[in-house]
Amino acid sequence: MASQPESSLPERSRDEQGAEGAAPSKNALKKAAKEKEKAEKAAKRQQQEQAEKDKAAASDTAAHLYGPISYTSPATPPGQYLEDLGDLNAAEENKKVTVQARVHSTRKQSAKLSFLVIGEGDHTIQAVVAEGGGQGISRQMVKWCGGINTESIVRITGLVKTPFEEIKSTSITKYELHVEEIFMVSGAPEQMPIQRKDCNQPPPGEEEGDVEKEGVINVGLKARLDNRVISLRAPAQQAIIDLQSEVSFLFAEYMRKHKFKWIQPSYMAGAATEGGAGVFEIKYFDTKAYLTQSPQFFKQMAIAGDMKRVCINGPVFRAENSNTKRHLTEFTGLDFEMTIMNHYHEVLSFGEKLMIFIIRALQTREECQHLVNIVKKAGYPEAGNFQLPPGDEAVRITFAEAKKLLKESGYDVGEDEHEDIDTAQEKALGAIIAEKHHTDFYTIDKYPRTLRPFYTHPDSTNPALTNSYDFFMRGQEIMSGAQRLHNYAELCQSMRDKGLDPLSEGFRHYTDAFKFGCPPHGGGGLGLNRIVQYFLGLNNIREATLFPRDPGRLAP
Amino acid sequence: MASQPESSLPERSRDEQGAEGAAPSKNALKKAAKEKEKAEKAAKRQQQEQAEKDKAAASDTAAHLYGPISYTSPATPPGQYLEDLGDLNAAEENKKVTVQARVHSTRKQSAKLSFLVIGEGDHTIQAVVAEGGGQGISRQMVKWCGGINTESIVRITGLVKTPFEEIKSTSITKYELHVEEIFMVSGAPEQMPIQRKDCNQPPPGEEEGDVEKEGVINVGLKARLDNRVISLRAPAQQAIIDLQSEVSFLFAEYMRKHKFKWIQPSYMAGAATEGGAGVFEIKYFDTKAYLTQSPQFFKQMAIAGDMKRVCINGPVFRAENSNTKRHLTEFTGLDFEMTIMNHYHEVLSFGEKLMIFIIRALQTREECQHLVNIVKKAGYPEAGNFQLPPGDEAVRITFAEAKKLLKESGYDVGEDEHEDIDTAQEKALGAIIAEKHHTDFYTIDKYPRTLRPFYTHPDSTNPALTNSYDFFMRGQEIMSGAQRLHNYAELCQSMRDKGLDPLSEGFRHYTDAFKFGCPPHGGGGLGLNRIVQYFLGLNNIREATLFPRDPGRLAP
Repeated sequence: MASQPESSLPERSRDEQGAEGAAPSKNALKKAAKEKEKAEKAAKRQQQEQAEKDKAAASDTAAHLYGPISYTSPATPPGQYLEDLGDLNAAEENKKVTVQARVHSTRKQSAKLSFLVIGEGDHTIQAVVAEGGGQGISRQMVKWCGGINTESIVRITGLVKTPFEEIKSTSITKYELHVEEIFMVSGAPEQMPIQRKDCNQPPPGEEEGDVEKEGVINVGLKARLDNRVISLRAPAQQAIIDLQSEVSFLFAEYMRKHKFKWIQPSYMAGAATEGGAGVFEIKYFDTKAYLTQSPQFFKQMAIAGDMKRVCINGPVFRAENSNTKRHLTEFTGLDFEMTIMNHYHEVLSFGEKLMIFIIRALQTREECQHLVNIVKKAGYPEAGNFQLPPGDEAVRITFAEAKKLLKESGYDVGEDEHEDIDTAQEKALGAIIAEKHHTDFYTIDKYPRTLRPFYTHPDSTNPALTNSYDFFMRGQEIMSGAQRLHNYAELCQSMRDKGLDPLSEGFRHYTDAFKFGCPPHGGGGLGLNRIVQYFLGLNNIREATLFPRDPGRLAP
Repeated sequence: MASQPESSLPERSRDEQGAEGAAPSKNALKKAAKEKEKAEKAAKRQQQEQAEKDKAAASDTAAHLYGPISYTSPATPPGQYLEDLGDLNAAEENKKVTVQARVHSTRKQSAKLSFLVIGEGDHTIQAVVAEGGGQGISRQMVKWCGGINTESIVRITGLVKTPFEEIKSTSITKYELHVEEIFMVSGAPEQMPIQRKDCNQPPPGEEEGDVEKEGVINVGLKARLDNRVISLRAPAQQAIIDLQSEVSFLFAEYMRKHKFKWIQPSYMAGAATEGGAGVFEIKYFDTKAYLTQSPQFFKQMAIAGDMKRVCINGPVFRAENSNTKRHLTEFTGLDFEMTIMNHYHEVLSFGEKLMIFIIRALQTREECQHLVNIVKKAGYPEAGNFQLPPGDEAVRITFAEAKKLLKESGYDVGEDEHEDIDTAQEKALGAIIAEKHHTDFYTIDKYPRTLRPFYTHPDSTNPALTNSYDFFMRGQEIMSGAQRLHNYAELCQSMRDKGLDPLSEGFRHYTDAFKFGCPPHGGGGLGLNRIVQYFLGLNNIREATLFPRDPGRLAP
């Protein structure tokens, strides 16, 4: 067997997993020994507790109806069909079903009666365990059920029944589940570091710690991210990540429809461009390599190789020590690059229509709207209120018009027409355009040359401007893009104008690509995390990221 | 504007692009100065040549019909519609069309007549430039056309005409193009490092250099990869990369249909698992980080977070100093992970059906078959002959059965039933199964525990075996997968059995995920590059990779 493509593959596991790399220090060994002892004790305790429970169960006439699950080969129980909890609302009364779900809460009403709330995604239902019910439920079984820890996963077989009165604490209100069998699939500990339910709301603003308000705990963002597998179980948090998935699929759908080729760039390069600023260095065997800062050079090389239209969905790495609500050291880029036939607005229009397609799908497709509603219901104030103009034409203004709009609204945009708009002004502009055009998505075209990178193609009529654009959602940038210089001599000159050496090791392979003939082309890179962040109006980009990385976070 | 999401963004371009990082040495400065001088001279020479050409053109009555193209804002020429070269076969005679294509060859027949072969993808057509033709073609124009360098990109407007006799040297045989206007979109130099046409065939076996046979040059793999933007223009090389794109889209299509969520793992981790063997180290601000070796831990954490079914399309990094035909230091992983309801064969069957879906689509969908045929036509001996059984059930054998088959065929598989099959035997097994079952795709189930990593779930009836599988194409592994241990105590014990510390910094975040309840689950990771390599029967994985990385290659 080969050592690719899965991690820790057989070859490695045989040769190297027994050893643990560098020798640990004495202290580390002591600590490890202690921890090992502790872990072994805990495991032993757990085993003992389980054994006691099992013993109690063994002397029980209902012993076969509950307890730990056992998986054997072939499948047990054969032919058992699991229902989605969400489907129970549509089931007929008295239907016998088997579901697998998390225990959200348990309540031992009496020795004869226990209640559980179990959930799957954003669906919850009440399960009832009554002595004498089902196939002969015992008191031991009622007790066992009442003692199940929250967040454990159980498999329940039971009957769908109408309760005496509508149940208000669960999402499924018209039914409850009368338990016949209940098995433990995976146990959770009594103490959880955070509670899932305390994460189903926007995290408290800037605070790192938890906040308590009227008895409700709101878990801080740091603790949510430290315990991602728990916070992710909160419906709103999972819906946010699910929406990220939808955007990836929508991007792929649109690209495929428009005959783009999905390419895989390399993420490691032998030389750092731009002198290494903003680039992570890698130890690459006996030499150095760098994590690429964007796949743009690779996209352009594919175009020079006549691929015509290419797209990418992959990580983007930025070694920038910025700790803001909208920066990460790693995020997902949705990139595209295309040959231009007549005018660079072909690219700009394509990008605008792409974004409108994505946002509109998020607003109209049933599966997406379901997710948006979960986020909205959890109290995110801006979820579901994103404005888009009718049709597939975006509101587009020039950089000069943007400055004029700001000036008219009383903002100081400086005397120099090529001076940039700052982040606060960008936000203000978002509000101005939202009021004027009823849209939270718009684009700005024709940035001054001084504000754009060397590879940007100048405007053919005004060389102080460029054929470049930024995309905005709620006044925040989600994409930069441009027509690129495709003429070798012009590209080299533009680099020299900015003090860069086109023949240096870092740039040679890039500039070489244009030496051998390259069609006019342009493209852009969308930030997936930002699209989700601003579509939902989330305060922090980390909420829209499954496992965020920033200067202070490298785990989990 | 923000510094994300596009590379070399405005902020950086303003602040940092003027400076070039570390100060260069004297020698480097000298060298740079020399190179700069050389480049400037070359640029000057080019400009002069261009100026001369332009001057000649200026005194020419046909000057407006040819020469360098000019793009202005808005589009020029307005409303001009570009045809795909491939569509010309279906055009009516005498239709006036405009195409943009590469010049494959030029031939100046006489002072009055030049021929060009122009191409786009795998389509080529002959273009004729005749004095007095069109809107009054001049001799200068005929001469200019005859002198265009191969690989230049031109835009031609002309009439589709039936030639005197069928043209045998182009893909479009029934038509030629009678040029009326021709403009230079992007010029190529007279000397190219390699020729596109010399790459449209399988590269010479192990040789690094070019091989000449009966007057035909076959460019070596190294030169092809060094000049990727040129070799990529060879139809067969581009079709291989296009098939990679198809597989990515097919994977996404299947995953979406089966309700998988497309997640984005992190590719940087704060601690190296497995003692750092096989993992690239990153300088991460003031600390160290590591490129993840696979997204598996992240997939499993998503499952522990109740995401149920997740998939990934992204890079996988392997710091393995192996220089084989099937290993890279970076490749693309198509990963999936899913909750198991009853039996781990749910995962295995899903994976098998997924692969059969992908391979069958490659064999039956028109756009894919078109690409396969291009590769086949270029002389790749195994392209297009991949065998698949009818239906969507894969041939599946156990590891024990695999060894028995090999033994029956006379292979020495050792006395120990848990001893692994080596790569040569795997290949032999591929041939045995192909003969017996008429399939080049099959799976092997139930590997011995000693051969699999710590997180693999043991078989419930025979603890010496595991619920694990490998997928094979033409006797070569393309995927490893398994049911994973989801029980925290069992996982920790399995790690300790292999001498690993589950509470170490490298593993703590991973093992933590299982502490808080996790459903049974399994998955696998497909190697995208290998799927394309073995589907087409390519000799070297680098051919199936756009920008390959190995211990000796970090560019382009």
